[in-house]
Amino acid sequence: MENYIFCCDWGTSIFRLQLVDNSTGDVLKQISSGDGVSTVYREWTSSSKPISLKEFYLKVLHAHLTTLLLDLQLSSEVNQVLISGMASSSIGLDELPYAEVPFSLDGQTAVIKNIPMTVDFPFDIFLISGVRVIDDVMRGEETQILGLATSNNFIDSNTDVICILPGTHSKHIVIKHSQVVDFKTYLTGELFQLLSTQSVLKGSVEHQSRSEEMSESSLKAFYRGIDDSAPHLTMLNKLFSVRTNDLFGVMSKHDNYFYLSGLLIGNEIRSLQVDGIATIVLCCGNKLFELYKLAIEKIHAGFPIKLISPEVMDKAAFIGQRRIFESYQLKNKV
Amino acid sequence: MENYIFCCDWGTSIFRLQLVDNSTGDVLKQISSGDGVSTVYREWTSSSKPISLKEFYLKVLHAHLTTLLLDLQLSSEVNQVLISGMASSSIGLDELPYAEVPFSLDGQTAVIKNIPMTVDFPFDIFLISGVRVIDDVMRGEETQILGLATSNNFIDSNTDVICILPGTHSKHIVIKHSQVVDFKTYLTGELFQLLSTQSVLKGSVEHQSRSEEMSESSLKAFYRGIDDSAPHLTMLNKLFSVRTNDLFGVMSKHDNYFYLSGLLIGNEIRSLQVDGIATIVLCCGNKLFELYKLAIEKIHAGFPIKLISPEVMDKAAFIGQRRIFESYQLKNKV
Repeated sequence: MENYIFCCDWGTSIFRLQLVDNSTGDVLKQISSGDGVSTVYREWTSSSKPISLKEFYLKVLHAHLTTLLLDLQLSSEVNQVLISGMASSSIGLDELPYAEVPFSLDGQTAVIKNIPMTVDFPFDIFLISGVRVIDDVMRGEETQILGLATSNNFIDSNTDVICILPGTHSKHIVIKHSQVVDFKTYLTGELFQLLSTQSVLKGSVEHQSRSEEMSESSLKAFYRGIDDSAPHLTMLNKLFSVRTNDLFGVMSKHDNYFYLSGLLIGNEIRSLQVDGIATIVLCCGNKLFELYKLAIEKIHAGFPIKLISPEVMDKAAFIGQRRIFESYQLKNKV
Repeated sequence: MENYIFCCDWGTSIFRLQLVDNSTGDVLKQISSGDGVSTVYREWTSSSKPISLKEFYLKVLHAHLTTLLLDLQLSSEVNQVLISGMASSSIGLDELPYAEVPFSLDGQTAVIKNIPMTVDFPFDIFLISGVRVIDDVMRGEETQILGLATSNNFIDSNTDVICILPGTHSKHIVIKHSQVVDFKTYLTGELFQLLSTQSVLKGSVEHQSRSEEMSESSLKAFYRGIDDSAPHLTMLNKLFSVRTNDLFGVMSKHDNYFYLSGLLIGNEIRSLQVDGIATIVLCCGNKLFELYKLAIEKIHAGFPIKLISPEVMDKAAFIGQRRIFESYQLKNKV
């Protein structure tokens, strides 16, 4: 049983846990729940706080670990848990200082803290921290990127790439000589969400079901949004076109949704710094994938793009955790 | 009594009504209420709709008119009401088509509709519509600008100016040869509101009391936001600096509020098209005044600015309405 290990990707909104055979990488079982850091933190603050935040997190984690072990009818001899993501933030399980750049993709410069097992919590935790630069931070994406570099051949020490991870807070991560050297966060996803559901524009766009194929007119609207993200125009002004597009019947609310999307994604992708970069690596596990691909192909036409599939992205954090842990063990002789 | 007239500025959130002596311009009484178009429309949609939207609006208006007349112990011999603002929108009292540009500042090209009095509503309404260009609209600001041009000497037929009206939806209105020839709307105010209260940034900024003086460090933070609105940077990314400013203790949440403000206002003011323009006319009735002035002076240093005081702005819509009505009377021999 000693080769089994728990890997936990504890993000802002999603908690994912898997039990994996550390020697083969085979996943015995994986669960996913809504117990993300923001939910757990909110539950703790609205409780009467009979226990500390850390104890509260350990209780949540303990319940998931136990359930998973029971499901597999395994004893508790599995006693190591690797965790990355927002669990190391100020509202997480235990706040850790950030690692710095250059952040090596062999895991050697990662910041990792051991929280030893106790009678109440009989698992050794290895909590992996995030990375900072002078004006930006990430917690979780560094481990995903490290996992990608471990399991894929898209990065070698001679190839400089920029990885794009679209989402609520989209990340552009620059990798040179097998090290993360810089990265930037974009509020693209969050702004889209706020504008399309809370602003004056909400009545002018219609939310799409995720499975629906993009029609030709929606594609045209998306490209028009990208055109209107040109640097001589101002986003604060062009956003109002979403309203007039609807008011003047220029496009349907359905297409207007894609216009807004093109406007925001276009703004983000135009700022992509590709000087000295060999390949753009587009990593994402949802429908944004297609839209980002279209935007990159339009704005950086002809530039080499490598696409990372949702299936690969799903596993990246867990693979990265085990790689970081391996470095840690070598250094600390755990 | 025949010289008395009601003037009503019916905006999205505020309803303002005054009784004025049309020959002298003296205001007998003015009231202001929260019965803006968005409130009235919402109340109507959530009612069981026993009466039409138009009847619902007339009922609200009737109540205010009657109260004002009773307060002044005047009979109902006052029987004309001028209205501008969102009351002519699709969710207003009566939807009117927009006037087009060039929109003459003598009121001759305004779109105005008479809604004749009835037994139930014994007042003649003269509803003034908004103005559109190919990709923008306004309802209310055209009447304010016309009022300003009537009562101030900042516009003559030889001076081309751009008027800035900061707010939830900031407007830049270009006036050439005494005509509105173009305008643009910026979502600056609404975006500031959403970001500072609903987004990941909300914990990183602290709302200021309106009366408070701006400290030196807040001013520095505001200027830093303006610097970070430079065209080679991307707003979607720099917004995340609001988070790291707080996380890394770069500035207080108090100062960070001004950083965010500088970032957004800076983006708006950088896009100001001043080619062929003699003067920037900054019109506003609230604290934004000072911030916009600072931003213009920093970004367009040395450019002539004319400041329109809050007191003058308060009256502008009502003066504009009477000017438009005068043109209408001449044309239609009312």
